[in-house]
Amino acid sequence: MLGANIILLSLAALVAADCNLPEELKNEIASYATTIDLIITAATNGSFKGVTYNELAKFVDRFGGRKVGSKSLEDSIDYMLNLSLAYDLQNVHGEEVEIPVWERGSESAVLIEPRTKDIRMLGLIYSVATPVEGILAEVLVVKSFDELKERAAEANGKIVVFNEDFISYGETGQYRGYGAIEAAKVGAVATLIKSVSPFSPANPHTGILAYDDSITPIPAACIASNDANMLQRMQERGDTIKILLKMEAKMLPNQISRNAVAELKGNINPEKVVIVSGHIDSVDVGDGAMDDGGGVFISWAAAALLNSLGLKPRRTIRAIYWTAEEAGGVGLTAYQQVHEDEIENFNFVMDTDVGTFTPLGIEYEAGENGGCILQEIMKLLTSINATQARSVEMGLWPETPTASLYNANEQYFWYHHSPQDTMDIEDTNALDKCTAVWSSVAYILADLSVDFPKD
Amino acid sequence: MLGANIILLSLAALVAADCNLPEELKNEIASYATTIDLIITAATNGSFKGVTYNELAKFVDRFGGRKVGSKSLEDSIDYMLNLSLAYDLQNVHGEEVEIPVWERGSESAVLIEPRTKDIRMLGLIYSVATPVEGILAEVLVVKSFDELKERAAEANGKIVVFNEDFISYGETGQYRGYGAIEAAKVGAVATLIKSVSPFSPANPHTGILAYDDSITPIPAACIASNDANMLQRMQERGDTIKILLKMEAKMLPNQISRNAVAELKGNINPEKVVIVSGHIDSVDVGDGAMDDGGGVFISWAAAALLNSLGLKPRRTIRAIYWTAEEAGGVGLTAYQQVHEDEIENFNFVMDTDVGTFTPLGIEYEAGENGGCILQEIMKLLTSINATQARSVEMGLWPETPTASLYNANEQYFWYHHSPQDTMDIEDTNALDKCTAVWSSVAYILADLSVDFPKD
Repeated sequence: MLGANIILLSLAALVAADCNLPEELKNEIASYATTIDLIITAATNGSFKGVTYNELAKFVDRFGGRKVGSKSLEDSIDYMLNLSLAYDLQNVHGEEVEIPVWERGSESAVLIEPRTKDIRMLGLIYSVATPVEGILAEVLVVKSFDELKERAAEANGKIVVFNEDFISYGETGQYRGYGAIEAAKVGAVATLIKSVSPFSPANPHTGILAYDDSITPIPAACIASNDANMLQRMQERGDTIKILLKMEAKMLPNQISRNAVAELKGNINPEKVVIVSGHIDSVDVGDGAMDDGGGVFISWAAAALLNSLGLKPRRTIRAIYWTAEEAGGVGLTAYQQVHEDEIENFNFVMDTDVGTFTPLGIEYEAGENGGCILQEIMKLLTSINATQARSVEMGLWPETPTASLYNANEQYFWYHHSPQDTMDIEDTNALDKCTAVWSSVAYILADLSVDFPKD
Repeated sequence: MLGANIILLSLAALVAADCNLPEELKNEIASYATTIDLIITAATNGSFKGVTYNELAKFVDRFGGRKVGSKSLEDSIDYMLNLSLAYDLQNVHGEEVEIPVWERGSESAVLIEPRTKDIRMLGLIYSVATPVEGILAEVLVVKSFDELKERAAEANGKIVVFNEDFISYGETGQYRGYGAIEAAKVGAVATLIKSVSPFSPANPHTGILAYDDSITPIPAACIASNDANMLQRMQERGDTIKILLKMEAKMLPNQISRNAVAELKGNINPEKVVIVSGHIDSVDVGDGAMDDGGGVFISWAAAALLNSLGLKPRRTIRAIYWTAEEAGGVGLTAYQQVHEDEIENFNFVMDTDVGTFTPLGIEYEAGENGGCILQEIMKLLTSINATQARSVEMGLWPETPTASLYNANEQYFWYHHSPQDTMDIEDTNALDKCTAVWSSVAYILADLSVDFPKD
């Protein structure tokens, strides 16, 4: 910490109403201004200008998509460990995790009636296969789970197409997540789900689904918006619609992957930890540049940049590149289990998986007192206009305050889990600013004289 | 013409400076206000509300892409003739045109070094094939024709990748049009061209190319922006890049297609003609909803709507659905040749191929006097906020004043000539307004007491 007085106070004394933080704490946070300016300058106009983008591009160009269970993923993990070593980070190592491996295999959906047309599709992660000869069935299109219930009598033996409207990832994602269960409940033989995206003509978007042990699983895939809308129109015209769906999807034996770890050791309380993280795996389509290459690289860059500036915070900053997030948060869950005894020392978790577009600040789940501290910290990011701290529900770390990047990601779901997730979505200046935010927040949180309140 | 006095005057007497149209003519145009309101109401809130979208969707859902030389195109032409008959249009017929037929066949581009990656590509229309075993060659990436000239010595035996910036379709389209010629001149064995689009990750956009009889043709394809940018970065890092390109593209024997024609016969000077038109064929990828299904259907709807309202203009309104535009304007050129003797009777040509997004007015190539008349006409479109008339270079009809739709088509080249050109791009309210513009302008031009000035 540069130029700040060490202020010893109990954060239990903080009253968060209207953020009446003690003047001493406010002054302590304000005293980081010079250091934060140094960090921001290095990230956006100094030694790290362009580094995040260029290193991410090298990584993405070299490995492309990093599917769970692929050699590409494991090679990319080795690469990140080496890159972390090359920037003199410490305690660089992988931690093994057992991962489930799903393989898409060959797959196709062909409209047979009322005319022949290839339907662009992507099997959903964890979907079961069709029989080798495929499933040829009539189609029932519904706009919602409610409509499916109303038309349950029509669904038996059919391929149910969900042509839901996009509301939000959380709400609309229910169809991808649970569509196969709900369709199977009413006797459907397979389901095709409009991609969870506000706009995706000709570009299906994949992702994981859930099955229910009590219901026989049926094959499930996502289709592009234009085909879902076309099927809807055909049904409304009274056409008989038939589709031949073929999917070879299957589970392979579990494998071992790794969460990758690299640290900037704390110089006073090294056992206390601020985590900066993103996930290194990606779905098997696209290059995983946005989801979540950007999150990995701003986390790597935060540790590497602070280290390169010789900034040694009080606590340890631990960069973690999670594995198998796209398999259902497998790497993170395993880490929490293995590190259960250490969790009390996890002062704060910064984990971002929402794009690295122009940053606006951070989103947090940190309680009232914590929120006040974060808001005070973000005031130091004025020069890059990333001063916002907004409270959201994240739910990944029930015992630890967490933050994610808050960024101008309005188009995130245009590209998410699709072949369009490429370096073309990333921008070097935006990435520099994201690195500036991530480094600045991590540094102050790791260096504050008081532990972050866990209320 | 409803409620307007017939004003006989020579348009040669018009002085266009600052649009000093004779008061009589201005009054005559203004007198169409009631009729235009009737047309606009029918198109946007009456008997034709939703008709353009619904009929276009039926058409697109039934035929999909309508490649030059396909059964789908010929069937779609029959369909449009029948649809025109069903709406009581007259003189409905096809006019045969000999068309060149190019077939893409199987095609692929695989990055071999520095790593293996499928490169999404689309052969350019008229490209020659590679040998059966493909072309395996090193890659030279250039940003421009100028850079290619500077690096000509490096191009021999290589696959030249053009990674040009998107400026405009006219300017950037030169690379798609002439890249194969320029690359061949310096000894390249094939060329891959970044798609002519401001934004196209993972989505290549095809189109026609030109060859030069004096230079041996080389295979040419377009690739998505993310791959072009990746190859550029690899080259800048000093990587050796090798691609294996395979294309089966070939010319088939010429076939016969048809321009489709349907008329609303003029009631005073039926031999004089105002053409409303778009092209019915499309490239073989995507559904050709935007390019140019929309243009065809607002032209069909203009004639059908006016007919349904019992509006009989002085001159004939002739709807034409051109064939083989994507083969190089073949249908239009043939029509001009066959109808050379009739061209003096072509009072005005409305031909649109630029999208049917929210209309802003029209673009025209019509001389000063003509421009003044069009501006006066467009004042009647205030209620749908489509009052603009702007002069542009079109060049398709040297002897006849022409207009195209002016619409909010900023994203046209995001979808153009790609699989994304689907009904998802179209909007029913925008199409209704486009039909209102197209019908209104066609009606007044066909009904004015004076012929449109050809200066």
